[in-house]
Amino acid sequence: MTGPKHSCGVVGIAATYNVVPALQKTLMIIQHRGQESAGITVFNDDGKMDILAGSGLVQVALPSNRLAELKGNSGIGHVRYPTADSKDEKNIQPFKVTTNFGAVAVAHNGEITNYDELEAKYLSAGYSFTTNSGSELVTKILSKHMSQHNDPIKAMKSMMGELEGSYALTIQIDNRIFGIRDPYGLRPLCIGEIEEGHIVVSESAAIDALNGTFIRDVAPGEIIEVMHDHFIPHKGPAHKHKANCMFEWVYFARPDSVIDEREVYDVRKRIGEILARECPADVDIIMPIPDSGRAHAIGFSIASGIPYEEGFMKNRFAERTFILPDQKERELAVSMKMNPIKSTVEGKRMVIVDDSIVRGTTLKKLISMLRKAGAKEVHVRVGSPPVIAPCYYGVDMRSREQFVANGRSNKEVCDIIGADSLGYISIEGLVEAINKPESELCLGCVSGKYPTRIPGETQRFQSKLNEEF
Amino acid sequence: MTGPKHSCGVVGIAATYNVVPALQKTLMIIQHRGQESAGITVFNDDGKMDILAGSGLVQVALPSNRLAELKGNSGIGHVRYPTADSKDEKNIQPFKVTTNFGAVAVAHNGEITNYDELEAKYLSAGYSFTTNSGSELVTKILSKHMSQHNDPIKAMKSMMGELEGSYALTIQIDNRIFGIRDPYGLRPLCIGEIEEGHIVVSESAAIDALNGTFIRDVAPGEIIEVMHDHFIPHKGPAHKHKANCMFEWVYFARPDSVIDEREVYDVRKRIGEILARECPADVDIIMPIPDSGRAHAIGFSIASGIPYEEGFMKNRFAERTFILPDQKERELAVSMKMNPIKSTVEGKRMVIVDDSIVRGTTLKKLISMLRKAGAKEVHVRVGSPPVIAPCYYGVDMRSREQFVANGRSNKEVCDIIGADSLGYISIEGLVEAINKPESELCLGCVSGKYPTRIPGETQRFQSKLNEEF
Amino acid sequence: MTGPKHSCGVVGIAATYNVVPALQKTLMIIQHRGQESAGITVFNDDGKMDILAGSGLVQVALPSNRLAELKGNSGIGHVRYPTADSKDEKNIQPFKVTTNFGAVAVAHNGEITNYDELEAKYLSAGYSFTTNSGSELVTKILSKHMSQHNDPIKAMKSMMGELEGSYALTIQIDNRIFGIRDPYGLRPLCIGEIEEGHIVVSESAAIDALNGTFIRDVAPGEIIEVMHDHFIPHKGPAHKHKANCMFEWVYFARPDSVIDEREVYDVRKRIGEILARECPADVDIIMPIPDSGRAHAIGFSIASGIPYEEGFMKNRFAERTFILPDQKERELAVSMKMNPIKSTVEGKRMVIVDDSIVRGTTLKKLISMLRKAGAKEVHVRVGSPPVIAPCYYGVDMRSREQFVANGRSNKEVCDIIGADSLGYISIEGLVEAINKPESELCLGCVSGKYPTRIPGETQRFQSKLNEEF
Amino acid sequence: MTGPKHSCGVVGIAATYNVVPALQKTLMIIQHRGQESAGITVFNDDGKMDILAGSGLVQVALPSNRLAELKGNSGIGHVRYPTADSKDEKNIQPFKVTTNFGAVAVAHNGEITNYDELEAKYLSAGYSFTTNSGSELVTKILSKHMSQHNDPIKAMKSMMGELEGSYALTIQIDNRIFGIRDPYGLRPLCIGEIEEGHIVVSESAAIDALNGTFIRDVAPGEIIEVMHDHFIPHKGPAHKHKANCMFEWVYFARPDSVIDEREVYDVRKRIGEILARECPADVDIIMPIPDSGRAHAIGFSIASGIPYEEGFMKNRFAERTFILPDQKERELAVSMKMNPIKSTVEGKRMVIVDDSIVRGTTLKKLISMLRKAGAKEVHVRVGSPPVIAPCYYGVDMRSREQFVANGRSNKEVCDIIGADSLGYISIEGLVEAINKPESELCLGCVSGKYPTRIPGETQRFQSKLNEEF
Repeated sequence: MTGPKHSCGVVGIAATYNVVPALQKTLMIIQHRGQESAGITVFNDDGKMDILAGSGLVQVALPSNRLAELKGNSGIGHVRYPTADSKDEKNIQPFKVTTNFGAVAVAHNGEITNYDELEAKYLSAGYSFTTNSGSELVTKILSKHMSQHNDPIKAMKSMMGELEGSYALTIQIDNRIFGIRDPYGLRPLCIGEIEEGHIVVSESAAIDALNGTFIRDVAPGEIIEVMHDHFIPHKGPAHKHKANCMFEWVYFARPDSVIDEREVYDVRKRIGEILARECPADVDIIMPIPDSGRAHAIGFSIASGIPYEEGFMKNRFAERTFILPDQKERELAVSMKMNPIKSTVEGKRMVIVDDSIVRGTTLKKLISMLRKAGAKEVHVRVGSPPVIAPCYYGVDMRSREQFVANGRSNKEVCDIIGADSLGYISIEGLVEAINKPESELCLGCVSGKYPTRIPGETQRFQSKLNEEF
Repeated sequence: MTGPKHSCGVVGIAATYNVVPALQKTLMIIQHRGQESAGITVFNDDGKMDILAGSGLVQVALPSNRLAELKGNSGIGHVRYPTADSKDEKNIQPFKVTTNFGAVAVAHNGEITNYDELEAKYLSAGYSFTTNSGSELVTKILSKHMSQHNDPIKAMKSMMGELEGSYALTIQIDNRIFGIRDPYGLRPLCIGEIEEGHIVVSESAAIDALNGTFIRDVAPGEIIEVMHDHFIPHKGPAHKHKANCMFEWVYFARPDSVIDEREVYDVRKRIGEILARECPADVDIIMPIPDSGRAHAIGFSIASGIPYEEGFMKNRFAERTFILPDQKERELAVSMKMNPIKSTVEGKRMVIVDDSIVRGTTLKKLISMLRKAGAKEVHVRVGSPPVIAPCYYGVDMRSREQFVANGRSNKEVCDIIGADSLGYISIEGLVEAINKPESELCLGCVSGKYPTRIPGETQRFQSKLNEEF
Repeated sequence: MTGPKHSCGVVGIAATYNVVPALQKTLMIIQHRGQESAGITVFNDDGKMDILAGSGLVQVALPSNRLAELKGNSGIGHVRYPTADSKDEKNIQPFKVTTNFGAVAVAHNGEITNYDELEAKYLSAGYSFTTNSGSELVTKILSKHMSQHNDPIKAMKSMMGELEGSYALTIQIDNRIFGIRDPYGLRPLCIGEIEEGHIVVSESAAIDALNGTFIRDVAPGEIIEVMHDHFIPHKGPAHKHKANCMFEWVYFARPDSVIDEREVYDVRKRIGEILARECPADVDIIMPIPDSGRAHAIGFSIASGIPYEEGFMKNRFAERTFILPDQKERELAVSMKMNPIKSTVEGKRMVIVDDSIVRGTTLKKLISMLRKAGAKEVHVRVGSPPVIAPCYYGVDMRSREQFVANGRSNKEVCDIIGADSLGYISIEGLVEAINKPESELCLGCVSGKYPTRIPGETQRFQSKLNEEF
Repeated sequence: MTGPKHSCGVVGIAATYNVVPALQKTLMIIQHRGQESAGITVFNDDGKMDILAGSGLVQVALPSNRLAELKGNSGIGHVRYPTADSKDEKNIQPFKVTTNFGAVAVAHNGEITNYDELEAKYLSAGYSFTTNSGSELVTKILSKHMSQHNDPIKAMKSMMGELEGSYALTIQIDNRIFGIRDPYGLRPLCIGEIEEGHIVVSESAAIDALNGTFIRDVAPGEIIEVMHDHFIPHKGPAHKHKANCMFEWVYFARPDSVIDEREVYDVRKRIGEILARECPADVDIIMPIPDSGRAHAIGFSIASGIPYEEGFMKNRFAERTFILPDQKERELAVSMKMNPIKSTVEGKRMVIVDDSIVRGTTLKKLISMLRKAGAKEVHVRVGSPPVIAPCYYGVDMRSREQFVANGRSNKEVCDIIGADSLGYISIEGLVEAINKPESELCLGCVSGKYPTRIPGETQRFQSKLNEEF
């Protein structure tokens, strides 16, 4: 129904020195947001913009010898998440073009929900597209508005008036670096100060890794220009209701990142505590599904007073389920990457804590492995409410058919996965754990109500974007 | 002064079957026109256009396993010549975009002389560019005119009204294949019939290799649409004077190709015959500089009655001088690729025949090697007049400074290269050998008079393009 | 002082079907034992032995398309650990040769301490070497004894009489598969039954992953031949004192493996419990250094009643410190792979639990990061006694200079790493945790007393190998 | 019936400076002798022997950046010819081992006819083999004799007493460089002086390319040690009849090389002259099959007075037929690499001259192409007598079944290939052209009589090797 999804990671840096090493480091820190490709652009001393990008992890896509050839005091970067239709190498970002107002590069995290409409509009106007990425669309729209306003900020605001959906963007125009967050703040973006420079980046953990200082989140609808010695905020179109994606805290972001003033680890631990309250269980041990369920399980253990144990050995030489592109590869990977630890499991009644259940296939396999290893009872507790609706904002959960919880009772799902009991955190509990008003969160995938217009779906907030900016 | 040069090879094929093998074969046949990169597009059964392109020779750029994944009954292809600023992988062709009127791919041989003007014009209009290739420019201009005319032929004619310089283009619009030749016919392009299909391609030799039948050359200013069962010619803007590049016969094309009704081998042999008449020499043997000088030398031998000998061993594991990107690599390569055959050379007076002299550095080295091997006299005969002016139409000869004959007498050049005598064919002789009126040839690089407007250069023909088409 | 070190992983499988997929799976499961190269041999239906081996992780070294070309009902495999002098590709294992008694392949985990003597001996006898690996030496010695005994078992026993040091070997002679463990049992090796087949492998976790059944450990000095339907044990030279490497439980092996009848996770948890008893601390939380310190920390938390917390975010896109080849790369990697979680750390007094301290450089960096993140007190507890002496049996700890604990008091080391206190488990505590007599363990690196003759070092056991076998 | 065939190229260089660039250059000059793999060894300043070797052409197998890391004043090199069973990468040469008398590397051109016997002998003695190449066998035999004699020259002489068949070897023992030629001189090897150094190499053309001076051929049975300032010849076992392979002059070697005092180009031209005398034809033109038939055709043209023409365009982007590994690839390649030049061919009666006919398949295809292009008569003249018997000395012509001339009359072959007439040079004519006594040539493949013992074949010379050396 829409253009391709991009739950990815973005960064932009301006400093008094060559930013290539900092871009590389940052992309490795936010690598969990996308492992399919990586790329950077920098503005070199000859007044030209150079690009290096490729398939695979940062260390493969951006080999050190090639990086060593790049140099520039400002640049942006991107890591891309694998989605079904994104294998095409031409979709590797940043997307870079030459325009009348300079070289322009764009890195995009999120999903433009009216991509098809906008593509059609610009195609009709005689534009052509070399990719099917939001990044290219952004350059086209930006170019059009630049030719009218001849001012980047004005052009970006006009552009934001056309874009719908989620976007955290870093944009480089010659040597100028901008960060933009959509009017609902669906995807994260924050600002930091680093040594003689500034950074806009998807997650705050990257600022830590650069020994920098976190300044603040980019506000919804805000445009930030970062320079080496300061940054300039510009107010763009914002909605009166924010809609931060709850899944960033539940699963997507690094535990050590602070997203919209809430530390991810802290939220997860609180989720575990609330889960223990909402869905208690009489068991011997609490076990996480590593790695993403650990903080939730620790919270559950502390709140319940039941000992925390690591009952699964995770093979770090296999990728995490959620990140793999298709169902077949997902199943193949399970037995290679998880093995129960017998001494922990044997004869025990246990809660296993996972961050979320989408298809349930991995979980079913894991429970069967636990039983084979001698587990007496296996109770599943889940750190997010049942996922019943698609995400249109950049998380690769598309069709209702794939959600095991869609149209099934708790009991039915519990039987399918083979657990002794199954408990999810409630929406209220999740909201409490995040500690933000429900009206400031995007809960689309668990409520079916979306912050923005999605054809065929329910819209939560009918009010318009703020037009006075 | 201009956009990048493309003396390359192009092809377009439509048939009732998968054309990928035929495209691959064709590109290998016209590989001599460009070894830096290769690419093809095809329109697949799902109604999408697929592309495969990469750096290097066809066998590297288009590996068999990847080709096997492509399928379509129509497609175009391109091989690219290395020029100084063309190393960038993004310039690999065909250039493919999505437009309002379908997927469009363009392969270009030649050089758009008003590239900078047109780029500036379209940038000002809000367009952005991802490459600096003529192919992308063509798509932009075509898109604009398509949005006005909504008819490919009309749009192509309007486009040709904007383009200056040389171009042999193959264009694919979804499953339709077009071939276009510039109003002067500067670069070659011809039509052939193959089994249940038709082809437009730079050189006729490719039609032979496909066991096809040569039909005719594309006329200057003509647009050809090829279908599997017929082809449709459309008259576009043409100049009353053709201007076929004389260098295609002298050096660039394969000897077995027929370009504008003149077989290349035949022209070269006649050049040799006329050279023997214009610049005779009292010698023992006639020797070619292999491989490109062979036909000229055979002609010289036959006309003079002096025996033909192969006095140089050419190492086929080194590239030909002219094709290498920079001066340093050129010099390095000489001693690796040519070695005199002592029995032939020792104690002999000889004519060595070369197709042309540009810098003269290779020739100087070769003559010195001949003398070291015992040659008694070395007389140089050249199959083209002295190159004294740049080519603006796609042959990589750019600055007057590099031409050894520029501003020097025949005697001076002869001394520089260390020959006993030096004789070039005259312009008249060359025209006679090609057997076309001088007014139908581009002799810009040997006369300094160009068929089209070139800032700072003399224009031969002041008349306008034919406007009635 | 010796030949190259090989702390690696080995496997041998015989079954009624193609064992290539099982070999691949096994190598991925024991990948943590070596990531520098991987290889397998199989005996194909044409009566020949095929080999596939390469640099890098299993998925890179043994690409699926290449594996698909291999087929055989018996085979061995190897993953190699990077050591300083092992970069050479020729050292990739298995080492395969043709001999008078068939094709022979050898995979070796461990280190032959008299490698130099044996190499010299065989060189003097007119043998030549293509690598400097123990595997090749093994083939040479085996070949010599085969030409005398013409019986593999007898030849292997004679070979074991020459070899000193540690070795877990898998050997393939045409279609026969053998596993051998050195007379002290220094390196692990166990036997399992899989579907219609048998396996010898470094760690039991691999048997689980193949849905097989663990049978038993290979005894010190034992030679096992595995067939598809049974296995045959042969008694070789053994020492009356075993000397199982304590580091396999402390750090090297997977937590879900059972080594010499002790589950690794269980031992580690007990180490944590004993540490809590031997070196208690008045703190708010117990934190592991992930991933290897988790089980120790959980044990400490349970025994002390102090809550367990995950205070470090580990970036799974960086390798673990210990596994990286040189000091420079080690330091570079620290900041990329660990970041403190502020909410957990800030204002807290904490114990951090690590499995061992070798150089102390990573730990120092981590403590400094914790303090920067607001930690009030940082107490270090270590799951192994101070490492003060080299390992000569295959763990890459070579010179005393590199051990921070060598010649320094506890206080001095504590100051160097910047901790508030530092406590190691005692040797007695470690022995208690492993729950084996001290006389059955190799404690060389913490005691300086070695089970076998090492020039310049103290030998624990003076008795000879059992000669009657 | 024997070990693998090696018609390859070898080189050894000793100088006062780093010989790596000279080795690379030499291998590119003798690249025509083998394109499947390339490798070099050098003895570096640290007293170790380094090796670099890989698959493919020199420029791929020995990439410049890797070569730049190698340095040494002495080294050897090898290019390998693709034979059916040689795809295995382990057979890439030089073969390098560590022995009791130093690091040893061996590069081999030729074929050890008693390979199987010797392999069995050494396997029985307890040796093991990692490859199935003559090079490794040579190291084993050399090692054995070194352990007896402790003198390289004596050991090499003893080794030559064991080896049968053809071999031109370059051997490096630490920093010493040796060249050895078999007792019959079957494969070429010559000595040259270069700047502050000496070289032994397969073909003299390489000495020219290094601006060196040809000294002389290595004599049959001779061992040459080259040093930077001189070379030392040692007399080894020689046969009183030389047996130089006639195919080196006819086809294999470069035309500019001088092999055993006969320049290749010169011999080929004389072959053409004698062919014109032995098998005249009443035609309009003489055409070569390029590239290898050119010199023969020029000779024919001069002797007959009939004009020489180049009637085939050869696509230099395809490999020569003979060099491709299997029949299928051979056929595929024909149409891609040869195209008749119509103006030359149409309506003409012609002789086409080829160096040799083995299978005849390519020739048949070419004649059919000529007829399609309008040739009136096509007469085939061949520069070697009919090939009717296998080569056991390193040319990849193995089974009698593949030879079109085997068991067929001239008329039958002529019909098969579709020629108007077919004429071969006679054995006597070939001997005359080479200008050496028939008793000094190996004519095995055209006479069926071999210089050395070959089980099942006729032996020409019964006399023994000279034993007094």
